[in-house]
Amino acid sequence: MTENSFRKKLGNIIFESDSPAGKAFDVILLVAILLSVIVVLLDSVASYHEKLGEFFYILEWAFTIIFTIEYFLRIYTAHKPLKYIFSFYGIIDLLAILPSYLSVFLVGSHYLVVIRILRLLRVFRVLKLARFVGAADTLQTALRNSRAKIIVFLEVVLTIVVIVGSMMYLIEGPENGFNSIPKSIYWAIVTLTTVGYGDMAPNTPLGQILASLLMITGYAIIAVPTGIITTEMSKISSKKQASDKTCTHCRTGMQDADAVYCKKCGKVF
Amino acid sequence: MTENSFRKKLGNIIFESDSPAGKAFDVILLVAILLSVIVVLLDSVASYHEKLGEFFYILEWAFTIIFTIEYFLRIYTAHKPLKYIFSFYGIIDLLAILPSYLSVFLVGSHYLVVIRILRLLRVFRVLKLARFVGAADTLQTALRNSRAKIIVFLEVVLTIVVIVGSMMYLIEGPENGFNSIPKSIYWAIVTLTTVGYGDMAPNTPLGQILASLLMITGYAIIAVPTGIITTEMSKISSKKQASDKTCTHCRTGMQDADAVYCKKCGKVF
Amino acid sequence: MTENSFRKKLGNIIFESDSPAGKAFDVILLVAILLSVIVVLLDSVASYHEKLGEFFYILEWAFTIIFTIEYFLRIYTAHKPLKYIFSFYGIIDLLAILPSYLSVFLVGSHYLVVIRILRLLRVFRVLKLARFVGAADTLQTALRNSRAKIIVFLEVVLTIVVIVGSMMYLIEGPENGFNSIPKSIYWAIVTLTTVGYGDMAPNTPLGQILASLLMITGYAIIAVPTGIITTEMSKISSKKQASDKTCTHCRTGMQDADAVYCKKCGKVF
Amino acid sequence: MTENSFRKKLGNIIFESDSPAGKAFDVILLVAILLSVIVVLLDSVASYHEKLGEFFYILEWAFTIIFTIEYFLRIYTAHKPLKYIFSFYGIIDLLAILPSYLSVFLVGSHYLVVIRILRLLRVFRVLKLARFVGAADTLQTALRNSRAKIIVFLEVVLTIVVIVGSMMYLIEGPENGFNSIPKSIYWAIVTLTTVGYGDMAPNTPLGQILASLLMITGYAIIAVPTGIITTEMSKISSKKQASDKTCTHCRTGMQDADAVYCKKCGKVF
Repeated sequence: MTENSFRKKLGNIIFESDSPAGKAFDVILLVAILLSVIVVLLDSVASYHEKLGEFFYILEWAFTIIFTIEYFLRIYTAHKPLKYIFSFYGIIDLLAILPSYLSVFLVGSHYLVVIRILRLLRVFRVLKLARFVGAADTLQTALRNSRAKIIVFLEVVLTIVVIVGSMMYLIEGPENGFNSIPKSIYWAIVTLTTVGYGDMAPNTPLGQILASLLMITGYAIIAVPTGIITTEMSKISSKKQASDKTCTHCRTGMQDADAVYCKKCGKVF
Repeated sequence: MTENSFRKKLGNIIFESDSPAGKAFDVILLVAILLSVIVVLLDSVASYHEKLGEFFYILEWAFTIIFTIEYFLRIYTAHKPLKYIFSFYGIIDLLAILPSYLSVFLVGSHYLVVIRILRLLRVFRVLKLARFVGAADTLQTALRNSRAKIIVFLEVVLTIVVIVGSMMYLIEGPENGFNSIPKSIYWAIVTLTTVGYGDMAPNTPLGQILASLLMITGYAIIAVPTGIITTEMSKISSKKQASDKTCTHCRTGMQDADAVYCKKCGKVF
Repeated sequence: MTENSFRKKLGNIIFESDSPAGKAFDVILLVAILLSVIVVLLDSVASYHEKLGEFFYILEWAFTIIFTIEYFLRIYTAHKPLKYIFSFYGIIDLLAILPSYLSVFLVGSHYLVVIRILRLLRVFRVLKLARFVGAADTLQTALRNSRAKIIVFLEVVLTIVVIVGSMMYLIEGPENGFNSIPKSIYWAIVTLTTVGYGDMAPNTPLGQILASLLMITGYAIIAVPTGIITTEMSKISSKKQASDKTCTHCRTGMQDADAVYCKKCGKVF
Repeated sequence: MTENSFRKKLGNIIFESDSPAGKAFDVILLVAILLSVIVVLLDSVASYHEKLGEFFYILEWAFTIIFTIEYFLRIYTAHKPLKYIFSFYGIIDLLAILPSYLSVFLVGSHYLVVIRILRLLRVFRVLKLARFVGAADTLQTALRNSRAKIIVFLEVVLTIVVIVGSMMYLIEGPENGFNSIPKSIYWAIVTLTTVGYGDMAPNTPLGQILASLLMITGYAIIAVPTGIITTEMSKISSKKQASDKTCTHCRTGMQDADAVYCKKCGKVF
């Protein structure tokens, strides 16, 4: 076997999952990612760290070395190595190993390896679950299409919380826990989003009236992003239904269900 | 009366509710289920347990014995006993009596009999409330159709809470109550879902900024499941309306349910 | 003026609001209702009660006497007195004066006069705000049409909170504030609805995992009532648009926009 | 250059942003607004105020003077000065400088300059981001169209919180923190909107049952504003799609935006 054909074969196993070896590689990888994340989670619990700290330490480095080898193999076998390195998953693969090496110099940074969980997002593509890939695409398209509306919405939310937060700072003041405007804005966000921790809460009647107005506003305007996303999804969904009809001449899909002539080439169906 | 015809008659009373006897049986059963659940609920209140504990104990065993007899009668009278045993309601019927027997060996397990409340889900079928059965079916279909999208959504939510939870652990640390990454992830879930207990809340400015971003994310992405379900329900609803009527002459579909003449060719249906 | 024509004239002023006198009567009535509610609210504040208690007491009785006179005038001038007495607003009008008389015998019950606020619901009808009446009707229709689905939804919610509440009672127990199953069910409702007071919160890892699942469930299934209501509203809204087309022969409205023949009588439009 | 043409040129720079100078002016202005708001926010933090208070004080007055000059330049160069002064942005521009001058007489009022953040709402128009302006218009139209329904909804919410708040005052009473009816109404709003601070929470079983009902109500009726807004947005969205194209030969409307041939008669557009 020449080196070239070996590289091709290896690349197939690593990047694709249609061969038995490729599928096995991907499943093992997913399990390894999951395990390495769980190790970090458990290591952060003081009682486990005391008992199993060294074992976790070894495990973590083992996973890091494995993922490092995998990363360089991906670069070695990729069609266009540079394209892979700067792709979404290429960057995540790098970020997934960096924190461990960083932790040699910077104590605590090794917890950042939980970023490995992002690698799990591949799971649907790996497992060839067409329905889930389709669902993910639909969600992505809906979110992308409603981006402009959602940014406008967020700017309005930001304006509301800055103004109401400042007013609450004047009304309640530091004696009621509203120490500064930024902290009051934080409170306004906690209230508007209906999270409501209760670590800060208005005590004066005027503050409670303003808070009530903010809550009702937050309760009502949550309808806005919902309306935006729902409308986009309905559009995508109805377009998909329409696409059942495809022109037999020019292959243009997504034609209206009641169309008699193709909208692109004008041929009768 | 032969044994066979007796079994058939009994099975009719137990499984169907179109005869007066069958209906009476079902209503009594529903009331008994409700009472047995209420007994467990009250028994768990310390003050009632002290005063009425023994009375509750007797009642609970009475209900358990009744439901056990009923369970074996169901097996005895079912057309295909095995099919019943492994059906959804068959399993629930068994689970509804097991905890009481288990409590002989395992203290406390008798509270699990509240699982009996699942048996109440039969209520609509029993009472022959066609509208409610239809409504339940619509909801079930909508949820089943949106399963793929909702799983993708939940995976994204999981990824967000793991990453944000880990970052909060690094930012806030054990001195602010963020003792471990799993506990920080729990906090991230409490925050993202806008529950906001307030048992843990960020104290550092950086933590509060990150928390604010998480809240706004949670507040905005609740739109996603809503959009998914709404779109599915609209589809089901419009399909129901559309499929009602098609002209037998010109084949134009999607006619109104109350139409007498075709809206396209004017022929009587 | 005969007594009969006087009664008719008075009834017109009281029940209708198309004459200047009728409109003036209704506006004064709405203001009086609002004032009487505000008096009760302020009277409940200890510091105001001390200073102005007697003044509030006199005011409250003044309003009660006025509303009592009004109530008997309504009965006296109504077309069908019995129909008025048992109508929705008739009952509310009675309930709005009863608590004051009841308070003579039962201390504290006079606070129930806040039920008067229900009388304010007339405001849109009184002010002849056709758009608001239409909006209220649309909302009512949407809610009525989705009743079956919402009841099914609530039964599922009830089942979830009973089962999860009981499990939490077993997991957390009285030592963590989960004193009884009913109280744990209360906690489950607080959590599922994303209210999250924080007066009870899980402390054990297992309890926090179960709580996390409950929160995510609550966060996701809020999509269900939203989907139900939105679908109903869309239906009503699109039916309204369709109704622009009305048959010129048989006056049947709500025909499809693209219809060529009337769906009821078969005539060409 | 005559004074008139100078004024015209200046007005172009200030009000429009299609020339390089106009664009530069607008971008600098937006940055200045943002900076001036950040200065106020930081100044309210005690530790920063101690160290940098004087510096912030100078900065704030510098910004105020700049914005005052800008305001008078806007009046000077506007086509119709009065129309500008009483326009939405004209009033905001005035309110953005007033608090600083007011703070000379009224301590604390200078925090109100955060109202300057409202000026940032211009950002999309300034940056000529057509998509965002369109998105903002869609949101505004949807909110305006659903105003009547939302007001009816808010009146129902108000009625619920007043009645439930009063009942809770009677049930829980001052000994459980429900000091007065207005405060109980505040609690009812906190609960209905699912914010749930936890500063007040019911302690009696009856109070907890009533609170549970209120929470489930709040959880379910959030569907109403969502349904309203979503329906409006769908209407706007489908109108936009539909109005895009109508065949000039056969007058069939609602053709796809990207259609080249009519779907009914096959003619080129």
